[in-house]
Amino acid sequence: MTKPGIQVRRAGAEDAADIARLLHDFNDEYEEKTPPVPELTRHAERMLREGEMTVLLVGAEPSGLALLRFRPSVWTEQREAYLQELYVVPARRGEGIGQTLMEAAIQLCREEGAAWIELNTGETDVAARGLYEKLGFTNEEGQQGAAMLYYELEI
Amino acid sequence: MTKPGIQVRRAGAEDAADIARLLHDFNDEYEEKTPPVPELTRHAERMLREGEMTVLLVGAEPSGLALLRFRPSVWTEQREAYLQELYVVPARRGEGIGQTLMEAAIQLCREEGAAWIELNTGETDVAARGLYEKLGFTNEEGQQGAAMLYYELEI
Repeated sequence: MTKPGIQVRRAGAEDAADIARLLHDFNDEYEEKTPPVPELTRHAERMLREGEMTVLLVGAEPSGLALLRFRPSVWTEQREAYLQELYVVPARRGEGIGQTLMEAAIQLCREEGAAWIELNTGETDVAARGLYEKLGFTNEEGQQGAAMLYYELEI
Repeated sequence: MTKPGIQVRRAGAEDAADIARLLHDFNDEYEEKTPPVPELTRHAERMLREGEMTVLLVGAEPSGLALLRFRPSVWTEQREAYLQELYVVPARRGEGIGQTLMEAAIQLCREEGAAWIELNTGETDVAARGLYEKLGFTNEEGQQGAAMLYYELEI
């Protein structure tokens, strides 16, 4: 259930600096290379303005975000949604912010005409996996329930 | 190495019926729900015309395809590429068609300005995983080499 008092809102281009800060902190925490905040801000502003990404934020000085991408499905007239990032700042974890963001993200995906939502996460990220599974996401395919794996190649 | 005699070409809207047939057979083989071929053909034709998907084909009566999606990266001015489907008809497996398609796909992603390529596959799909790993794709993240998992939710 969405926790009372946690307000989720859809970001506009004016939120680009806050989004950039959260994305930067996310990368830093997971020891990923990250562009500097001013560069991320300019880029996020353009992506938001052009509808290339959709961001949900929690809080006036945001303490968490869900970043979604939409595109036409290969199979039907519906769309497919990809949850590209989900982040809650360390000081605010354990309050239900992640779950509230995810519930709002699922609702938004329905409103946007998506047939399904995809995401990737790490095997050892037990908290995130628990949340996704609680909300009905599955990592298993077929009758044997084999895991579905994510691969990437930098080119 | 790309095998001599295996010709890869980039599909146009006129290839929609062949692509639809391959996608339909792919779904059938993996026991996934699939729209009928005429419906897939109409949809593929529009997706190709609008540049929403990029398809590589092998052969005049195609025996395999690689289906790619491109979108702007959240992080930089580059793009990100997603290999959504890779399929070789059963009668033509073991000839190097899949590897040739993958090598052409990687080359195309470079030309299209992609910074990386993502894909999902099943834990038990050993042949596909072997091919992806041979080409440099990784399923591991961080210093511990934990697996990266793919989750989905039908909504």
